[in-house]
Order: sequence, then C-alpha cells, then structure tokens
Amino acid sequence: MNLEDPIKMHRDLRGKIVISSKIELNEETLPIAYTPGVAKASDAIAKDKSQVNVLTGRQNTVPVVSDGSAVLGLGNVGPEAAMPVMEGKAAIFAQFAGINAVPICLDTQDTEEIIKIVKALAPSFGGINLEDISAPRCFEIEQRLTEALDIPVFHDDQHGTAIVVLAGLINALKVAGKDKNVKIVISGAGAAGIAIANLLFHYGFENLCLCDSEGIVSHERKNLSEHKKSIVGRSASPCKKGTCNLALKGADVLIGVSKPGQFTARDIEAMNENPIVFAMANPIPEIMPDEARKGGAKVIATGRSDFPNQINNALVFPGLFRGLLDNGIQKVTMDIKVAVSEAIAKMVENPTAEKIIPSIFEKSLVPTIANSMQDFDKIGKIKVK
Amino acid sequence: MNLEDPIKMHRDLRGKIVISSKIELNEETLPIAYTPGVAKASDAIAKDKSQVNVLTGRQNTVPVVSDGSAVLGLGNVGPEAAMPVMEGKAAIFAQFAGINAVPICLDTQDTEEIIKIVKALAPSFGGINLEDISAPRCFEIEQRLTEALDIPVFHDDQHGTAIVVLAGLINALKVAGKDKNVKIVISGAGAAGIAIANLLFHYGFENLCLCDSEGIVSHERKNLSEHKKSIVGRSASPCKKGTCNLALKGADVLIGVSKPGQFTARDIEAMNENPIVFAMANPIPEIMPDEARKGGAKVIATGRSDFPNQINNALVFPGLFRGLLDNGIQKVTMDIKVAVSEAIAKMVENPTAEKIIPSIFEKSLVPTIANSMQDFDKIGKIKVK
Repeated sequence: MNLEDPIKMHRDLRGKIVISSKIELNEETLPIAYTPGVAKASDAIAKDKSQVNVLTGRQNTVPVVSDGSAVLGLGNVGPEAAMPVMEGKAAIFAQFAGINAVPICLDTQDTEEIIKIVKALAPSFGGINLEDISAPRCFEIEQRLTEALDIPVFHDDQHGTAIVVLAGLINALKVAGKDKNVKIVISGAGAAGIAIANLLFHYGFENLCLCDSEGIVSHERKNLSEHKKSIVGRSASPCKKGTCNLALKGADVLIGVSKPGQFTARDIEAMNENPIVFAMANPIPEIMPDEARKGGAKVIATGRSDFPNQINNALVFPGLFRGLLDNGIQKVTMDIKVAVSEAIAKMVENPTAEKIIPSIFEKSLVPTIANSMQDFDKIGKIKVK
Repeated sequence: MNLEDPIKMHRDLRGKIVISSKIELNEETLPIAYTPGVAKASDAIAKDKSQVNVLTGRQNTVPVVSDGSAVLGLGNVGPEAAMPVMEGKAAIFAQFAGINAVPICLDTQDTEEIIKIVKALAPSFGGINLEDISAPRCFEIEQRLTEALDIPVFHDDQHGTAIVVLAGLINALKVAGKDKNVKIVISGAGAAGIAIANLLFHYGFENLCLCDSEGIVSHERKNLSEHKKSIVGRSASPCKKGTCNLALKGADVLIGVSKPGQFTARDIEAMNENPIVFAMANPIPEIMPDEARKGGAKVIATGRSDFPNQINNALVFPGLFRGLLDNGIQKVTMDIKVAVSEAIAKMVENPTAEKIIPSIFEKSLVPTIANSMQDFDKIGKIKVK
C-alpha cells in the first residue's frame, strides 16, 4: 500500500470497507439464515415491528448520507466525489465503534427529496449520520428528519464539530487561565460555525461573534439568514459591523471553520493576552501554527494529525453513535452534546498547551463517550433517578 | 448458536452481516483514508466521475432493495419484516461472491417513489438487486430503472428464479428423455411465473400455459393483466379455460411457484409419462416429493435444502452479480440469462433424477456463472469477435 500517494492507495484498495457474513453459511446454517428458517424471524417482526431491533442488525447500522454539496474544503463536487469521504467515515465507524456504517451518496440536492428518501430508508437503520450537506439546507433537513423519525439524526459537520470544539475549549481555557467570560470570535458561519456558536451559548459563554465572507455578522447587515440573525441576538457584547480581523481585537478565542490562510501573526497579536487559536480549515488551516505562535497564541489547535491538538470530529462520531444506539436515544439534545464534550475534555487529566484533547487512537475514547450518555432517556433528557 | 430455533439464532446474532475497515486505521493510514489525504481521491472523481469505480468500492457494492410487499410466502409484511431476508441475501452475496451487499428496506410501496429513491441511490452502487416487491409493480419498477440507470438492475424474484428453473429443466429433460416439444404448466402467475414463462419461450419452448388463483390463464378470461395476456398469446397449443388441475392432463412439466399443497398424486398421474415436477413454494411445496413420486413423477425438485434438487435462486444471484460487476455489464438481457442457465446446467455432467442441479456450496459455481458472462458487452449483447 502506497502511503505517499492517496490516489494510488485508494486505487489499490478499491473501497475502504468490506461486508462479510457473521456466520459461515453451510448446509446447516444456510437454511436458518435464509429460507426457509428466516421466515420465522420475518414473521415475528411482522407481528411486532420493534423486534427488528432484536432479530436483525438494524440497531447497529447507520447510513452516512451525503448529497455531495459541501465535501471537505472542495465544495459542491457531487455525490460520486463524496464517496471516498463517506467510505472513510464508514471505516472509522467500523474500526473504532464496531458500527456497521453504509456510505449513501444521493443523486439529488433537493431538500424535500432528501427528506423523503432518508425517511424511506429508516426501517433499515438504527440512526442517521448526515454528512457534507451544505447550509442552510442541512439545518432544515436535520430538523425535519429529527421530528419525523424515532431514530437519532445527527449532522456531523454541525454537531460533531461543535462537540469537539467545546471539549478542546474547556481544556484550552484551563491552560490559558481564562474562564467563561472570554470573548470568542468564530470565523465561518456555515453549518459548523452556527452549530459551534449555539453549543457555546448553551454552555454559558456570552460574548461571541460570528464572521462570514462579508465580515462580522452584525445587526447592521441586511439580508442575514435566520440562523445568523439568531446568533447575533444572543451575544452579550455587541457584534459590530467590520472585518473579521477587526473582530479579533481584544478577543480571547479564535475558532476558525472557514478557509485557508485567512489570518496572520499580526491578527493574533491584536487579541487579548494568552489567546487561544483553533484553526480548523482542512487541509490548510486559517493560520499555520508557527505563524499563530509568532503572534503570541498560548494554545493552538488545528484539524490536522501532523500538529499537536487535532480537533477533528472523528473524535466524536464513533463514540456518540455507540452511545445513541446502545442506550436507545432518539434525539441528540444540547445536554447530550455538553455531556459528551465534558467527558472528552475530562480524558486529559492535566491539559497543557500541547495536549488539550485525547487522541482518536486512545482505546478508552469510544467507551468514555458512550458511557457519558447512559444517564439520558430516549428523548435525550437526563433521567430522573 | 441454536440451529433448532431460527428466532433464537437471529436474536443471538443480532444481524447477519458485519462491516469492517479493509485496512487498519492508524496514525499513518488514517490521514490518507480520511482527511486530509482523502480529498485527493474526491478531487480526482470530481474531475472524472467514472473514477468512482476505481477509487472506491462502488463497483463491488449492491443494495438489496425491498419494500416488504411480497416477502417469501408471507406476503405484504412491510419493510421491517423484510429485513431478515435481505440480510440473509447480503450474507450470501458476501460469502459466495465477495460482494458488499446492503439491505435496504423502504418505508414506501409507491411505484414512483421507489423509482425515485433507487435512482438517487445509484451513485453509491455498482448494480441494483430488487427483491420481494409484488407484481405487477415490480415489472414497471425494474423496467424503468433499467432504462434510467447505467448500472444493472435485477429483480431476483423474477429472473433469478427463471434462470435456475431453466437450468434445472435443461437437465431434467435429459433425465426424462424429453425435448423442447414438452407441454409445460406453470402454476403461479406472479413475478416468478411471468418471468419463467418469458425465459422459457425465449429459449424455444412453445407449449406453455400459466395458471393463477382463478385457474388457467386463457383468452376466454376477462380483465387479464398485460403481462398475463402476453403469455397466453405466445403459446403454440391453446390455453383453454379451466382449473389448473385440468391443465395438467397431458402435460410433461409442472413448475409450481404458487402455494403449498395445491396438487395431489392424482394430478401427477394425469400428466404424460415420466413427468417433471418442480414444486418450489417455500417452505411447503405445492406437492411434497413423496406424493409426487406416488403419482409417477420422474424428476422432482423443490425449493428446499432437505430434499434432492434444490431449485433456489441463491444458486444464481451471487455469480450473476459477480459477472455483471466484473464485466461492466449494464443490462441483464435474455441472452445473458440463457448463457447463465446453460452454464449452471452444464456443471452437472451426468444428470440423474436425484441430481439435476449443482449445489450452492460447489466452489466452482460462482466463477462458472461469472465466466459465462465474459462474452457480453456492456448492454448485454454477445461481443462480435
């Protein structure tokens, strides 16, 4: 396998997942796994639908559904080009959480059609992972599916990112000697930026401004989307019109989920003392770690595995779905997201500037996340004991 | 594992297939299989869609799609109850043909919606296996998808059954000393019955009548469906109104794809000398082998593994899809079906009354079927050499 050349590696593998039979099919087992014996299992489910979660693998199977409209940093490249990413996620689901995940890249970008299709797929799956669907369609698709289905629906680009950012931030604040009164700037107001802002407000942060390609998202701007407008309204300190670089003046935390090379050392210098910089654009961050350090950043994280502090939602989704499926949780609430963030943060006993977040390869990561969800009931509320 | 009790076996397994990562994901491989390296593969596909068949597992992945409307002998039991059957098929695909098959049971029985959904799924799959969808909707769904997609679409209940019946019949005729002039009666005019009739006519049989729940399908009957009408029109000997038992008088071959216990020894006695009886209703045949033998049947086959001569489409679909995917064939034509039937029949060098068909466990079955398809081009025509 050629590790230097991703194209060659993908060509050699021809697919990153493999499906196998759990049992060896022979003259004894085949007539039970298939006709005629299988009819007994079908009959039992026909009489009581809920038995599908006991007599089949449904409760351990999740589709990774994309329409190819917002794939990595590549943008709207279509469903075929999304396939390698969804296969990669399925491989991660398999290895780290033992979940059967199926890449499903849809040949439609119509909101109504996507909702209809995912609803129709639900009898085969214990949960739905939405992936790389562009904003604002992703918000409506996730919300309506969550309302319609009795299985959990999770748009990873939004909430996986938000959860891992909060986890990292909890520890970064400790390292930088800061608290919830920090001033936060999020660069990027797509699916991830909006979700991060909502989770941080819910957690108790009060001073937070968003930036998009036109600069600071402020009340003074016209034609703001509903989602952006609701964020502006929640900040205790005002988000005034201007460039994103301007927003950084006096800020404590920069969270980048936008595009490569957007900031320089000088922008970081303009921030408060001991600033925290999460530059998560992939593969090239909003500011490279060296440059951020030059500007005085105290804690630096990126989305990349070749720098310290990799903030990647791959840290979250395997354990999160393990917890959802094992505990029969149907709705991913804010409280669940916070519990998972805190559980991840707690895994790093003594956070340092070089280590605010556990590695995806830590064996206890998935069980720790899944266990943190045990106290939630099926609609995602803390169980009354 | 409890082999006596299919329910317990299914409960112990909790799903008959497992999805795994093809490579071990570690610090070296993860950044290539997933972000950032995977972006190179996505980018290559964005520039040339056809690369999805080279850089992902698409060309070896097939959904087993059902709407739960005609599950085994159980009928319209819904998508959840269809799941154990589709999982069984997926396990068979995996073990016998190394194909990644995904159970997809849809929460809709609307023809237009099913067509739309399957079309939307196509970017992720190299072929489509339709399963347990009731007639007459299955005909339109398969036909329109075949026209719309550039990947093969195969409704197994129709053509898998037809192919294995023709394979068995080729050898049964040798054993019974009969030829293509035989008079054939098919009991059952659903998806399987219609498809068997069409393939047998194509192969050169001329005397063939269908029976349904109202008796012989004849011109004298009113309100016949288009599909039934077209069958009546093709028979050289007339199909006259009457009961199915009447149709057997002077017939050489009975092919049952209908319901348990429909015929007695006396019905078989009324057939020509050395009659051939394929009684394939599952799990209980149209006539039990003992009873058929009492009536003088020369060759007897059922759908069951506990009697000799198991005529089951599981003999066909793994090898057929192996051949379609490996040879890039987009349409399953009559010529392909005949080639596959003949290849299967030829595997039994000296057919006897007890052995007209190979076993699903013969290692050479899948490669023999796949090899028989090498001479076909992508639209399923014999290649000009």
